[in-house]
Amino acid sequence: MRILLSNDDGYFAPGLTTLAEALAPLAEITVVAPERNRSGASNSLTLDRPLTVRQAHNGFYFVNGTPTDCVHLAVTGLIDFMPDMVISGINDGANMGDDTIYSGTVAAAMEGFLLGVPSIAVSMTQHSAKYFQTAAQVIVDMVKHYQRKPLPQPVLLNVNVPDIPHDQLKGVHVTRLGKRHKAEPVIKANTPRGETVYWVGAAGAAQDDGEGTDFHAVRHEFVSVTPLQIDLTRYQQLDMLKGWLP
Amino acid sequence: MRILLSNDDGYFAPGLTTLAEALAPLAEITVVAPERNRSGASNSLTLDRPLTVRQAHNGFYFVNGTPTDCVHLAVTGLIDFMPDMVISGINDGANMGDDTIYSGTVAAAMEGFLLGVPSIAVSMTQHSAKYFQTAAQVIVDMVKHYQRKPLPQPVLLNVNVPDIPHDQLKGVHVTRLGKRHKAEPVIKANTPRGETVYWVGAAGAAQDDGEGTDFHAVRHEFVSVTPLQIDLTRYQQLDMLKGWLP
Amino acid sequence: MRILLSNDDGYFAPGLTTLAEALAPLAEITVVAPERNRSGASNSLTLDRPLTVRQAHNGFYFVNGTPTDCVHLAVTGLIDFMPDMVISGINDGANMGDDTIYSGTVAAAMEGFLLGVPSIAVSMTQHSAKYFQTAAQVIVDMVKHYQRKPLPQPVLLNVNVPDIPHDQLKGVHVTRLGKRHKAEPVIKANTPRGETVYWVGAAGAAQDDGEGTDFHAVRHEFVSVTPLQIDLTRYQQLDMLKGWLP
Amino acid sequence: MRILLSNDDGYFAPGLTTLAEALAPLAEITVVAPERNRSGASNSLTLDRPLTVRQAHNGFYFVNGTPTDCVHLAVTGLIDFMPDMVISGINDGANMGDDTIYSGTVAAAMEGFLLGVPSIAVSMTQHSAKYFQTAAQVIVDMVKHYQRKPLPQPVLLNVNVPDIPHDQLKGVHVTRLGKRHKAEPVIKANTPRGETVYWVGAAGAAQDDGEGTDFHAVRHEFVSVTPLQIDLTRYQQLDMLKGWLP
Repeated sequence: MRILLSNDDGYFAPGLTTLAEALAPLAEITVVAPERNRSGASNSLTLDRPLTVRQAHNGFYFVNGTPTDCVHLAVTGLIDFMPDMVISGINDGANMGDDTIYSGTVAAAMEGFLLGVPSIAVSMTQHSAKYFQTAAQVIVDMVKHYQRKPLPQPVLLNVNVPDIPHDQLKGVHVTRLGKRHKAEPVIKANTPRGETVYWVGAAGAAQDDGEGTDFHAVRHEFVSVTPLQIDLTRYQQLDMLKGWLP
Repeated sequence: MRILLSNDDGYFAPGLTTLAEALAPLAEITVVAPERNRSGASNSLTLDRPLTVRQAHNGFYFVNGTPTDCVHLAVTGLIDFMPDMVISGINDGANMGDDTIYSGTVAAAMEGFLLGVPSIAVSMTQHSAKYFQTAAQVIVDMVKHYQRKPLPQPVLLNVNVPDIPHDQLKGVHVTRLGKRHKAEPVIKANTPRGETVYWVGAAGAAQDDGEGTDFHAVRHEFVSVTPLQIDLTRYQQLDMLKGWLP
Repeated sequence: MRILLSNDDGYFAPGLTTLAEALAPLAEITVVAPERNRSGASNSLTLDRPLTVRQAHNGFYFVNGTPTDCVHLAVTGLIDFMPDMVISGINDGANMGDDTIYSGTVAAAMEGFLLGVPSIAVSMTQHSAKYFQTAAQVIVDMVKHYQRKPLPQPVLLNVNVPDIPHDQLKGVHVTRLGKRHKAEPVIKANTPRGETVYWVGAAGAAQDDGEGTDFHAVRHEFVSVTPLQIDLTRYQQLDMLKGWLP
Repeated sequence: MRILLSNDDGYFAPGLTTLAEALAPLAEITVVAPERNRSGASNSLTLDRPLTVRQAHNGFYFVNGTPTDCVHLAVTGLIDFMPDMVISGINDGANMGDDTIYSGTVAAAMEGFLLGVPSIAVSMTQHSAKYFQTAAQVIVDMVKHYQRKPLPQPVLLNVNVPDIPHDQLKGVHVTRLGKRHKAEPVIKANTPRGETVYWVGAAGAAQDDGEGTDFHAVRHEFVSVTPLQIDLTRYQQLDMLKGWLP
């Protein structure tokens, strides 16, 4: 089995190294990751300049581009085989609810899925996480299970893991994405040269975090696994819209 | 009525100017757009630096950030009212099928919708388009219709307009997103300093472009209107996954 | 006579427009400037990606690169003639003393000079300047004088103009560069996500601003004109170093 | 003795690691370097956004900024002592003649010197150099000599080392900067999306490389040491200009 790893925190991030080491006994691992932190990069693709690839001492490839660039480049030309799986992470911070739209971690997995490869995004639910090892073990177990019992359909999975020791996990829940409240307002600041600038505010707290959601699962110390899609069509509104248009 | 306009081609793009001029008689227009071309920016949000806002001679605000940054900044702090509608475009090139995942044009509208505002993304189906005026007229008609007959639900609409004179349009179709073939492979090139670099290849041709899709509508010279969602949960796979996990 | 104009504030900056309009009666003007503010860019050249050129409504070319890139690109390929002069500015803020090392305005002129063209950098001594017209008139007079009486040697001139009405100028002084005190310390700040970041502090006040310096000239309401070189060799230390090395 | 190291190839570059290891027995070493390759960055300072500092596993600090940013940030706030020396390198490629104007390696040393610290920039004369160890030994010897016999004046030294084994070096020459021919023309290319883009061409060959220059020294397998200055005033033209101005 051959697994392509990427992330959005950069090729040097401890979450990525932990994951690569944990998976090495199970599969041939190739890492292609951004040269610097690209959190919040979403699915952005670099179209106005070419990408450069370099290789670090540990064999990881790093690219001066986005997470999506990394997976796209790897699968469509850089590596000479089709990976059996793309895994993105372990992200240092949650990717739940609407976060998935902005997340570079999720985007890297989405790109793998779009190119025809079963893909998983995996994130710790806390920033500055302490238990990357927990998430690594969750993914190792999932990959082992997949090796014994393949899935009947292509999947794109979004996994969020509580930042606690592995033996304190209560189990795994299949979830839907919850919703966050609107983000906090932008924060005005001044540069030392007297210019006004604006920081994008913090993400909102969970708004829809009821049973069945990713927020609910991780709050109760379960791993959250959400199947994602890339078809943004809102099918339920097709008829309403047909009726509305003149 | 107050409309916030943005785009991903930059504040100086002719598609944006055409749209702003066409809408001016109908509503109070505020433009907040990227300072440079950010095509392919997807929903990326700038988190590692603050944003700067400047105002051009024509009153347009421009921001050193992404399309999502522009709408986020405008709605959560820069402008002191809640817009009644966010419109993003007119993009110079199609945003159909899987393009919607990468598109900065769609992302700007998506951010408006996520912040609670009915939002429209509008694109010409040809690059280097000649008939921005056609799309402007389509949007003007849609806004006028909306003013007379509000929609019963919040919407996020993705509109693609054939690059032909307005009187040659066959009508409007409500569509679902089609699918593209996988993108072309990356293209290797060499820099003048002898380094190997890689260009992301061209988007694939349409693969699922049957009746009902956006690709089908525009090929037959109809305007395509697709309702979009931001919940990426693949509900149909929830049960399958529950059965699969150990 | 054909003059190439550039700057580091971006192609849309009022200082550039004022200069282009003032010089139009005297020479054929071509503008190639950065697409966004690149203050502080120094002589940086973009080597890891190619540059894109676009043309604005007013005919100005703009480039997704640095001031040095703009002049380099213009002279070595984009325009099909060798300009008779390169002028960079009018910068919105002083470029005196050690500022010249960091300045993108000076760098654009330096690139012209290095490529064999007499070149001038011109700056207002105040940020958010009000009297760009004053500097434009100073440059117009200088170019007219140059047309009648060419210089016997190639020159690279650094011009700083007090931000006062033209009829209040006391005259023109040929100066040497003064020196600034060390810059202010970096300023610590926190992002809304709790990360520590550092702003480069403000430039230091003038330290060597005695008679004969650029600081001295403009403080007394004279235009300052400093001839610059690009050979950084410190000839006076050659012998000392030879004696020191073992 | 406390030495601050930086470079422009990025904190992960082998030239930097080799230098840090070689100097460790002689002094307390602190490394603050760019997070990615910033060759060609010149003296550019980042003014429109704040800088982020992270620490790698090996203790090196890395900054999302330019070489100048790194030294500026380190000396004016990040580290709580004044270094006794700043050394920048070992660069993978020559910095001779006019290269010094564009070089990020030289700029980092220049920033140290401007902030009052004796500073050295050190470069291999070949790209993809094999003998970083040679340059490391040259610098070790120079620092040891400096510890025994301090220099009577503050210096900014630009050192270029032939890419050969250390025992093949012929010695050390104190040199002036030579000159290069004009750079090669820009190279036109097309993106996969049909847009025209331009690569900055290769640096010109040496033009003034006679005896006494850096080019001459390294061609004859000597280490080149050039004292640099930061005062760009061309004193020899002051009188000529005074005579020329009306």
